[in-house]
Amino acid sequence: MRPQAAEVHDSDDARDPDDALDSWRDTKARQAVTKFVERVTTPGASFVPEPERIAVFDNDGTLWAEQPLYFQFAFAIHRVKQLAPQHPNWKAEEPFASLLADDMKGVLAGGEPAMLEIMKATHAGVTVEEYEKSVRDWLATARHPTTGRPYTEMVYQPMLELLRYLRANGFKTFIVSASGVDFMRVFAEQVYGIPPEQVIGSVGKVVYELRSGKPTLIKLPEFTFIDDKAGKPVGIYNNIGRRPIAAFGNSDGDLPMLQWTCATTGPDLCIYVHHTDDEREWAYDRKSSIGRLDEGLDQAARDGWTVVNMKSDWKKVFPDPK
Amino acid sequence: MRPQAAEVHDSDDARDPDDALDSWRDTKARQAVTKFVERVTTPGASFVPEPERIAVFDNDGTLWAEQPLYFQFAFAIHRVKQLAPQHPNWKAEEPFASLLADDMKGVLAGGEPAMLEIMKATHAGVTVEEYEKSVRDWLATARHPTTGRPYTEMVYQPMLELLRYLRANGFKTFIVSASGVDFMRVFAEQVYGIPPEQVIGSVGKVVYELRSGKPTLIKLPEFTFIDDKAGKPVGIYNNIGRRPIAAFGNSDGDLPMLQWTCATTGPDLCIYVHHTDDEREWAYDRKSSIGRLDEGLDQAARDGWTVVNMKSDWKKVFPDPK
Repeated sequence: MRPQAAEVHDSDDARDPDDALDSWRDTKARQAVTKFVERVTTPGASFVPEPERIAVFDNDGTLWAEQPLYFQFAFAIHRVKQLAPQHPNWKAEEPFASLLADDMKGVLAGGEPAMLEIMKATHAGVTVEEYEKSVRDWLATARHPTTGRPYTEMVYQPMLELLRYLRANGFKTFIVSASGVDFMRVFAEQVYGIPPEQVIGSVGKVVYELRSGKPTLIKLPEFTFIDDKAGKPVGIYNNIGRRPIAAFGNSDGDLPMLQWTCATTGPDLCIYVHHTDDEREWAYDRKSSIGRLDEGLDQAARDGWTVVNMKSDWKKVFPDPK
Repeated sequence: MRPQAAEVHDSDDARDPDDALDSWRDTKARQAVTKFVERVTTPGASFVPEPERIAVFDNDGTLWAEQPLYFQFAFAIHRVKQLAPQHPNWKAEEPFASLLADDMKGVLAGGEPAMLEIMKATHAGVTVEEYEKSVRDWLATARHPTTGRPYTEMVYQPMLELLRYLRANGFKTFIVSASGVDFMRVFAEQVYGIPPEQVIGSVGKVVYELRSGKPTLIKLPEFTFIDDKAGKPVGIYNNIGRRPIAAFGNSDGDLPMLQWTCATTGPDLCIYVHHTDDEREWAYDRKSSIGRLDEGLDQAARDGWTVVNMKSDWKKVFPDPK
């Protein structure tokens, strides 16, 4: 598992869109990407030096699927069940009681506060190594509820190709997601070829202490940064310190990130992935509670951003099973 | 100015310590570095794959000088004077009144709260672009009070060589400093070859808003993260997500970072730069208010960490004037 090395040494073939973007039909969406890459890599007025070729990607719904529920929440549900024996009180306490009874309606009735309770109970009170192991163990065995595939195979093959193609053309690729940063880092390198230091997400409070003399980082049940909506450009500023020239998202939560990326006079690329394929994936946008894309579609139309139509622009959605 | 490219394409010469570490005398300190690099880059039990070769560096007192005052504070003083005409009330308000009267004792009498007031007044209320410009303009003209050199030349030549040598050997180099992250990013790439996304520091609150429809990031007078002491391993975890294998510091503020780095069973390197040269630089340690190195010296002795003696280990301290 040495994806960073792969990032540096991606073969020349990956630089050529005809080789690299095999799962993309030759439509306007693909052309928007390849023309942009040609512009910024060709000496001339629109040339962008390599260190400034920053591309940012949302994760849920952009790099991997997010239906019928955010995958990190599936992990949280698993953890509640796994931890329940240590918390006998959960049987009588919402939202845990409903969750343990597999009553998702009961859980959802608690709204965001219930979600937050579940996240806190499952993402804190452990060392960072224990947390990482719990995510890794879950990913190794968990299966997506409708497709039966490992979550790490519920990723979009065309987006994997796009990541590789951009890197082969001197881009540095980052994830900028509302998911927990340390949740995503467990698989981002292996699955996307994105090293942990290029993953930006929501941040839980962590404290450093010496436990019996041993340096230890412990996760607390508190968030210090939510990397969503207006938080995304802030997360980019605080973590990258340079404005991206390309941004990829799929929901209104990504809109400020795309606005921030495409607000300069220099060359830039803003792309929305539009979930239009209810046969191979899911179809949802303006009215969805997960990954709502409403204002974003309007601004994309207004500003001429590219909207990828998953149904017609992608030959393939998910990679072949391993 | 393309330091990231330089990072990838550092010539082979830089990989060889005899070429690369020219300003280091051939003492135990230099040998500790070169033996460590040889261990982790040579196939075998101690080999570390490139993506895991993370090296972290404190900035003040480790990469550049910090006497007679932290350079970021020199910037803040300059900004107070520059902004004073817009704040007529400062003439009667501490700590600004003392500062404007060049009465540093009066400023320091206010202790940390006074410092904080000055930092807030000079590092907030502007867009991130305005802030960056104010730092850039200052760096272009400001001169160190005792040497008369630009602050960007008050950097340690042996440490510049060390950064380059590590990168040539497949390391990714990061700054982990209590200074403001966006202050350091203005010069880190040009001076150290460290791109903005590899600079970790204290973080001021930033908000995103549309100003007359234009996406804007604005700095607020509030800190959301202090990257000092126990904050350093936390900053490393949140920003890099991988434990470094090499850490370089000069003060007790760096101690948790060094502890965290050197607490594993794998190969690791922890180095303190000890300010021992009152002719070429400054000499200070256990009793200094700036860059105090007390507990750190004790732990270095106890754990066998390397302590660089600036006076005897370095042939040269600062680069030749340009």
